[in-house]
Amino acid sequence: MSNGLLVVISGPSGSGKGTICKRLIDEIENINVSVSATTRKPRVGEIEGKNYFFIDEDDFVKKINNDEFLEHALVYGNYYGTPKKIVLKQLEEGKDIILEIDIQGALKVKENYPKGVFIFILPPSLEELKNRIEGRGTDSKEVIHRRLKCAYDELNYAFEYDYVVLNDEVDSAVEKIKEIISAEKNKSARNQALIKKIKEV
Amino acid sequence: MSNGLLVVISGPSGSGKGTICKRLIDEIENINVSVSATTRKPRVGEIEGKNYFFIDEDDFVKKINNDEFLEHALVYGNYYGTPKKIVLKQLEEGKDIILEIDIQGALKVKENYPKGVFIFILPPSLEELKNRIEGRGTDSKEVIHRRLKCAYDELNYAFEYDYVVLNDEVDSAVEKIKEIISAEKNKSARNQALIKKIKEV
Repeated sequence: MSNGLLVVISGPSGSGKGTICKRLIDEIENINVSVSATTRKPRVGEIEGKNYFFIDEDDFVKKINNDEFLEHALVYGNYYGTPKKIVLKQLEEGKDIILEIDIQGALKVKENYPKGVFIFILPPSLEELKNRIEGRGTDSKEVIHRRLKCAYDELNYAFEYDYVVLNDEVDSAVEKIKEIISAEKNKSARNQALIKKIKEV
Repeated sequence: MSNGLLVVISGPSGSGKGTICKRLIDEIENINVSVSATTRKPRVGEIEGKNYFFIDEDDFVKKINNDEFLEHALVYGNYYGTPKKIVLKQLEEGKDIILEIDIQGALKVKENYPKGVFIFILPPSLEELKNRIEGRGTDSKEVIHRRLKCAYDELNYAFEYDYVVLNDEVDSAVEKIKEIISAEKNKSARNQALIKKIKEV
């Protein structure tokens, strides 16, 4: 059996990567979601092992030092990380995994697992991105401005990804990602076992 | 505008690449077919520029020497070749092109145009391949045996292609190739203009 695919969905804040990932997880059979570890306290309703693996800071730092994360980051005083062993085990079992992550995180995952499929979600325009971030109603003018500046800079990283998918319309973006996943499964490098089998029968 | 895709569909004799290509040409809008040049005489009903470009041998050899083919071959005393200039012009105009070709030809095209999308059609098994070739009723036992031996050896070239598509069922093979074409259009390297545009708006 060949390895599963690690499908990394990434993009600037406001690109819509979260909505797209929810749809993919609902609509694709047998796809797993990468669950992050964090030192943040659980919120009401969050389930250990489903939303996050909740661990304490000493433990997290130990795992960093043991190279147990595909990537990790410190955000507002809390650590977040993608546990390497769990992800690699699932891939070896032939399971596909979706990992939704910001751009810095995705690039670190790429260093550690270049065989992943790296997809950059593009907003239709910076104007639309501004509308989306403003529409959330959660950020101050200053924060919105900072996010937009950041998104503008982050677009330059799109070329370090395998694919870009324009999210002008969620249905179409989801469809394109499904096609990418299907195409990747037909890559010749992933089908050595199949070819061997044909030669035998 | 970004370049069109050169989609090269190839595989052993009996893999079903011809049937698949006909379906793709019927079903995909705005896809062009690469028309070969040949020194073979036109058969009844064959149209110049649609089925082939019919040219004489002196002309063909001159074009070989001028490096005017993406690939060419001599088959049973007749030359066949893929005209480079016509293909490259269409690609530059953003048109996608399907090229159905045998394995040796595809590998030569890859040398000359590595940006193409190279798809190897796999028969489900050598047994099934034997049934298909026998089913044509056109070949002697000896020819069938030679074709099978050749197909067996040719399977080793699958790894020089970008993708392999199992043709156990034509509908599903056609669908997979459509997904590959769609995915390839989302490759980040093919979308520099789009990203530039988003940054401007």
